Amino acid sequence: MDEFSLIERYFRRPGPDGEGVLLGPGDDAALLAPPAGEQLVMTLDTSIAGRHFPDDLPPFETGHRCLAVNLSDLYAMGARPLWFLLSLTLPEVDEHWLAEFSRGLFALADRAGIELVGGDTTRGPLSVAIQATGAVRADQVLRRDGALPGQILAVGGVPGLGGLGLRHWQAGQRDSDSARHFAAPDLDFTLGQRLAGRAGACIDISDGLLQDLGHVLQASGGLGAVIDTGALPVTPELAALDAEDRLTLQLAGGDDYRLLFTWPADEPLPEGSHAIGRITGPGPVRLRDPDGSERPAAAPGWRHFQ
Amino acid sequence: MDEFSLIERYFRRPGPDGEGVLLGPGDDAALLAPPAGEQLVMTLDTSIAGRHFPDDLPPFETGHRCLAVNLSDLYAMGARPLWFLLSLTLPEVDEHWLAEFSRGLFALADRAGIELVGGDTTRGPLSVAIQATGAVRADQVLRRDGALPGQILAVGGVPGLGGLGLRHWQAGQRDSDSARHFAAPDLDFTLGQRLAGRAGACIDISDGLLQDLGHVLQASGGLGAVIDTGALPVTPELAALDAEDRLTLQLAGGDDYRLLFTWPADEPLPEGSHAIGRITGPGPVRLRDPDGSERPAAAPGWRHFQ
Repeated sequence: MDEFSLIERYFRRPGPDGEGVLLGPGDDAALLAPPAGEQLVMTLDTSIAGRHFPDDLPPFETGHRCLAVNLSDLYAMGARPLWFLLSLTLPEVDEHWLAEFSRGLFALADRAGIELVGGDTTRGPLSVAIQATGAVRADQVLRRDGALPGQILAVGGVPGLGGLGLRHWQAGQRDSDSARHFAAPDLDFTLGQRLAGRAGACIDISDGLLQDLGHVLQASGGLGAVIDTGALPVTPELAALDAEDRLTLQLAGGDDYRLLFTWPADEPLPEGSHAIGRITGPGPVRLRDPDGSERPAAAPGWRHFQ
Repeated sequence: MDEFSLIERYFRRPGPDGEGVLLGPGDDAALLAPPAGEQLVMTLDTSIAGRHFPDDLPPFETGHRCLAVNLSDLYAMGARPLWFLLSLTLPEVDEHWLAEFSRGLFALADRAGIELVGGDTTRGPLSVAIQATGAVRADQVLRRDGALPGQILAVGGVPGLGGLGLRHWQAGQRDSDSARHFAAPDLDFTLGQRLAGRAGACIDISDGLLQDLGHVLQASGGLGAVIDTGALPVTPELAALDAEDRLTLQLAGGDDYRLLFTWPADEPLPEGSHAIGRITGPGPVRLRDPDGSERPAAAPGWRHFQ
């Protein structure tokens, strides 16, 4: 089975094309009509088996996960997803794997409203490069550099869930809520656009809350922040952990693919998000515990799956 | 040296940004203003060491080559290049390699007028995924499906040069013209846009002339073609070969990254292109030799570097 038949069988779908798709897979390149009056947001991420996802991740979850990490970048900019290209490197042509991978990929693509418009397939160690494009109005763009002192620091979803899920996955506990979130990250399909034009700064938490917060603070001119450790949202699985172990996952676990953003102090937070602290003037990031004591936020040694 | 320092050092450049670049590398995604009144052309190709290019290709040529294969797709659609994203997978952080790779990449990017706007780096077997975007007016788009019986079949550049260059490369003759073209394909930066709105069909020759011609004929409704073997352009290196050996390279050698197109019979061909035959009604592809005899164009066993 050659490359052309592969693409035809698993990645070309009948039915109406997505917004602005003039020519999808099959020519030298895709032809697309950009939406009038909007800017484009473009991201490219490669996911490598054994590095960005476990070698034994099932193909359905692999398809979901590799698209999710790119969608998360679009949402973090306030964009609505439009199109993606897929470059799939496979060690062999395994039809069951391909069928499941494309099923997981398209299930998420359909929910997000993003259309596959092109790409290529080749032979090699399993690796999935996806380039995704979204659109956003100029006055709605979310960036990293918009944080201001006094703004609320908030998250969508539960930081630490991805990190705990990785731990469960590696221990063979694959039916826990967190393991399922790690394998096929659950995205918030609407929060980014609800934040657009309103949040100060926004970033997706892929490398751990503290590290990604650091990018925001640095891009915003070297600000600081206070995190209320007791305000960090938890699931029952996280609540059951020892407190310091939980905090390490919450602050430094990666693979969350949820949004971290800043928000005006005098406006109600969007539904589905949680205030976890506030932005301060220049200074270090501090943790404030429920008893009111403060300590510096040291970067723990936790590494996400990479 | 972590991913962020790598990107900063080798892939971020000072100076004016390219057309429409509102936010380049450094946020969750790039932010771009699409040119008004034009359509977008988007392509994504992964180049893997040992498969799409030789393991021992020097880094300067690797950077050039990996971008060239994507630019070639944009040119084949009649587009002018705008932006690209780079996903670089490296086995190790080798600063000499990175410096040379980025020098080769940007030397070609500057000549083509395309701007690096984002991407990622990761650790793994050497592999380079590049997504490139170009723009073209709706009435100027070149597609595979526009061939008509009676049109001239023409090529830009010399088919077979890439295939011969691969042979030279593998034999250690790395200073020949063809080996240099194989290592760092020489692109025609203007032909695609000169064909735009005027050629019938267009495709880039990456898999060999006969195979890529087959895509055009099939997309155009199952047409046929006659190729005048004596009209195929040659370089001195190709001219020195045995006739049948040369023909195999010309018809089935890959890695040319030049344009194959169809053209109205009553109009002069664009400068730098060569008439090599004509499109016929439905039927097989035939070869016509200088003595007037015809034979079917059998697909030879030649395989390009993949």
